[in-house]
Amino acid sequence: MANPLLNDRDVSFLLYEVLRADELCALPAFAEHSRETFTLYVEACRKLAREALFPAYRPMDEAPPRLEDGRVITHPRMRELLRRLSELGVVNATRPVEVGGQQLPSTVAAFAHAYLMAGNLSAVGYVGLTSGAARLIESFGSDDLRRDYMTPMYAGEWTGTMALTEPQAGSSLADVATRATPAEDGSYRVRGSKIFISGGDQDLTDNIVHMTLARIDGAPPGVKGISLFLVPAQRRQGDALIPNDTAVAGVIHKIGWRGLPSIALNLGENGECRGYLVGEPNQGLSYMFQMMNEARLMVGLNGVATAYVAYQEALEYAKTRPQGRTATSKGVGAQVPIVEHADVRRMLLRQKAIVEGGLALVAYVSRYADLAEHAQDPEQKKESFLLLDLLTPVAKSFPAEKGFESNALAVQVHGGYGYSSEYLPEAWLRDQKLNSIHEGTTGIQGMDLLGRKVSLAHGAAILLLEREIGAVLRDARESELGRLADLLERALGTTLALTKHLVGLRDPGARLLHSADYLELFSTLVVGWMWLLQANVAQRALGKSLASETTLDGAFYRGKLCAAQYYLETELPRIEQLAALCREGEDSYARVRPDWL
Amino acid sequence: MANPLLNDRDVSFLLYEVLRADELCALPAFAEHSRETFTLYVEACRKLAREALFPAYRPMDEAPPRLEDGRVITHPRMRELLRRLSELGVVNATRPVEVGGQQLPSTVAAFAHAYLMAGNLSAVGYVGLTSGAARLIESFGSDDLRRDYMTPMYAGEWTGTMALTEPQAGSSLADVATRATPAEDGSYRVRGSKIFISGGDQDLTDNIVHMTLARIDGAPPGVKGISLFLVPAQRRQGDALIPNDTAVAGVIHKIGWRGLPSIALNLGENGECRGYLVGEPNQGLSYMFQMMNEARLMVGLNGVATAYVAYQEALEYAKTRPQGRTATSKGVGAQVPIVEHADVRRMLLRQKAIVEGGLALVAYVSRYADLAEHAQDPEQKKESFLLLDLLTPVAKSFPAEKGFESNALAVQVHGGYGYSSEYLPEAWLRDQKLNSIHEGTTGIQGMDLLGRKVSLAHGAAILLLEREIGAVLRDARESELGRLADLLERALGTTLALTKHLVGLRDPGARLLHSADYLELFSTLVVGWMWLLQANVAQRALGKSLASETTLDGAFYRGKLCAAQYYLETELPRIEQLAALCREGEDSYARVRPDWL
Repeated sequence: MANPLLNDRDVSFLLYEVLRADELCALPAFAEHSRETFTLYVEACRKLAREALFPAYRPMDEAPPRLEDGRVITHPRMRELLRRLSELGVVNATRPVEVGGQQLPSTVAAFAHAYLMAGNLSAVGYVGLTSGAARLIESFGSDDLRRDYMTPMYAGEWTGTMALTEPQAGSSLADVATRATPAEDGSYRVRGSKIFISGGDQDLTDNIVHMTLARIDGAPPGVKGISLFLVPAQRRQGDALIPNDTAVAGVIHKIGWRGLPSIALNLGENGECRGYLVGEPNQGLSYMFQMMNEARLMVGLNGVATAYVAYQEALEYAKTRPQGRTATSKGVGAQVPIVEHADVRRMLLRQKAIVEGGLALVAYVSRYADLAEHAQDPEQKKESFLLLDLLTPVAKSFPAEKGFESNALAVQVHGGYGYSSEYLPEAWLRDQKLNSIHEGTTGIQGMDLLGRKVSLAHGAAILLLEREIGAVLRDARESELGRLADLLERALGTTLALTKHLVGLRDPGARLLHSADYLELFSTLVVGWMWLLQANVAQRALGKSLASETTLDGAFYRGKLCAAQYYLETELPRIEQLAALCREGEDSYARVRPDWL
Repeated sequence: MANPLLNDRDVSFLLYEVLRADELCALPAFAEHSRETFTLYVEACRKLAREALFPAYRPMDEAPPRLEDGRVITHPRMRELLRRLSELGVVNATRPVEVGGQQLPSTVAAFAHAYLMAGNLSAVGYVGLTSGAARLIESFGSDDLRRDYMTPMYAGEWTGTMALTEPQAGSSLADVATRATPAEDGSYRVRGSKIFISGGDQDLTDNIVHMTLARIDGAPPGVKGISLFLVPAQRRQGDALIPNDTAVAGVIHKIGWRGLPSIALNLGENGECRGYLVGEPNQGLSYMFQMMNEARLMVGLNGVATAYVAYQEALEYAKTRPQGRTATSKGVGAQVPIVEHADVRRMLLRQKAIVEGGLALVAYVSRYADLAEHAQDPEQKKESFLLLDLLTPVAKSFPAEKGFESNALAVQVHGGYGYSSEYLPEAWLRDQKLNSIHEGTTGIQGMDLLGRKVSLAHGAAILLLEREIGAVLRDARESELGRLADLLERALGTTLALTKHLVGLRDPGARLLHSADYLELFSTLVVGWMWLLQANVAQRALGKSLASETTLDGAFYRGKLCAAQYYLETELPRIEQLAALCREGEDSYARVRPDWL
């Protein structure tokens, strides 16, 4: 059986039974939509993912882009994939009709795009980057830039990139050194070197638009002197496109995402690279940060999709691979499928808990993004934004970190075959590793969460989270899931008390010392919440006669309850241990000196 | 600075200060040795590892063996490496002088060989397999087989393999189907298919000897009907070597260990493959099991070495890569080396705790192996064997599982560069993944530990472990490490109570349900013991004036104390949570059915 990428039943469960996406149509922004149009988009993406993207995944992994005469040559199948992704309107699915978009809720797009990512992460990468870059122009660019550059990007004719990172600066954007010198025509001459620019060159479209961070001559040092520029590979001159002095300095040999080139890019080697200021001078970083939630949710979705497709592969393998006998069989009889071994089921159930919990998480946070942008009630809008902001580091890092563990389990379930490149799990394991690194490492997410997010609006975001989880706890008690509710309630109490303690610490070093542990703790709580939420819906559905044990739905809902039990009983208690470390300020790595290591 | 592979100071600390290897020379078996001869061997291996093996590592990873006209062609540098490894006597370093060995303690060989493995796992793989195969002949083979086959293997002229796994059986050796039919000359005609045979073909030596499991016609089904055969690629006929009807059916494209081919091997396609029975008929599995401890310790050492070398690489990178500023600097001043960031130090200290704790573990268990074989006192001999047997699944699986996490952290410390194949950490991450799969998966180690080992000799092994840990606890209290001792004592108490409870369960399914969790718990305790042991030695040394804060030794011992604190405070408490799961028999993956997943 071909890998389904995601479980369709899980997608409809989350979208309609848990998130009740149809209710979003009550908002004016989504008034033209209906459950039918949502389903239509999800199904179209699913079909493309299964029929075109996934079959190209392994060939693209095997033959990554190469440099030829200073230009990047991509896989021959990529051009057609990009055309079909553009036709489907993936690049601007959530954007307003005015800019050519379909104005779909992010909640819906999350599921549709998760299929695409599960099918072929690299192919979708070109589109995701283009979407993010065009979005920056849409939000902060002049009418001219929108017309000249954003429009062909949203039309799928050109692609876009994010050109932030520099070799000497890495994650430290304060140290960006690319220079922008005002030119006579109102543009700027840009000069500098960027690195790790995904999609930074390709042979698929006529143009590539690099959204570039640089310093205008005389700008203040540090993050306060960074401006955002639009730097096209080909700039417009009247009706013509002329080369804009950007050059590929090298292709990085990535270990995953091998369909999407990552390059070192030189700007202005000949002093002829023009950049167009986007928005106000020195506001570049604040613009980037406004897009950051979106980019980080996308990484979270990448992580979920990559772990999810590997789980599907491992599950099918475990159901069909006969090997050994169960512990109680005393070696008698035919070999059984390995899914019959308790330890294999443990590995599968853990994967299920991570990938389905992760998908619920990213989709739930996407729903806050929809409400933060489109809710009518100003209070709901504000609250949704706070929750979006609070939960973004979790939605970014949980799929990356736990997804990697889940991907490793998919390899392990395959045994010796999992260690060979004739089987796919090893490729997804490689793909996954990037997600803990790009768009802010896990370490940075931890500092963002504990250093900024939990104090947002004097801690209002945390109070909102308490309220949201409280509602699910009450619901669980009504659904006779009291024991699971007790587990989550205890974890919530521990987290709130710890947060209060840490926020009260004056010394930022002391507060942030265990930010990685705090992020793991907080993420575990949030995903526990996602599981109790799903268990409530499943439990209610099982109470209805339609979902009896003999139906497919009966099995599905029971699986949800088992995974919820697993997560809340097995993963959640770790919170107590992590909280003790954070609270007591265990100081081994504060004390250790470099020469002691 | 070139990667040192292992930390020399750590090696001498463990070998002479912790394990007091020189005391082994009091045993008659090692009477010819001294600290000087030990050090000579370690240094010779270290030199070869640094000067020859490590420089060939990346080239061999990049150009794995390929199939050409039905034969495997290995990397051109491998022939010279094999010659130099043989010259050093690596293949029979621990074997008696009578068979050409150096009769070194396994304790000493562990450190020497860890350098080799850290330098180039694949290259050492040929030798390790040859050693294991020759050892089987030495222990169970006839004089003829020893003379005809073992001798050239120990001399480094031929290599050997373990031919256990078959495509339809995998880990389930009960289902081995290769047949052996008695022939007129006392040999057997062997027919069957083997898979994942490491070093199963190569172009380096004139012959390869496959130690093969097969069933003699009419043998009972299951594990009781398996015999061990010596199946050479070229068999002796008088003074000549003639082809023995073994054929390469394919090369598996492994994701790591890419210098060592793993092949599918067909035996007897033309009915002309001769196998020579080793030992008694139907005793094959018991012979293999007698060698299993050795093979599993070797895998453990592979895992330690692979994580250790990556830690060294990450440490050097972190000390030299400037990026960002500390949390307390408010963005002012020059960029600092990333080792200054608390979260990077956390990742490094965790790696240190895993790799140095893992090396101590494997070396300690090797010492039990030495005493089990060579102690004069029969009581000590017996006790050492019980401890060796009990701890082998831990020494095999801890480095594989936690080593993989450590290797992933080494990638993470390198940021975006870690994700590229221009840097080495990703290659070690790939190498490491095999260690949780081969020589018995982690799942199998868990069942071995909880299903067999903890009940050994009516639980005598566990009581011995309690005694050993108890001695270290007393020592720690005398060294003013009372707080760390309390932590370990609590973990020990929890483990002992849990073990008693689980062993008392009648239903094997219930007893083994959480065997993976139990293995993790037990391993965490054992490595905690290794850390308290090291802390005791470090604390005492710091008490002496020679190791003041300003000396290199002062820094080294303080690092040991910090890592011990980290491990005991941060990793050990997880035991309580795991114990609760095992004790309460959390049943989600017992209950979940395949169609619920």
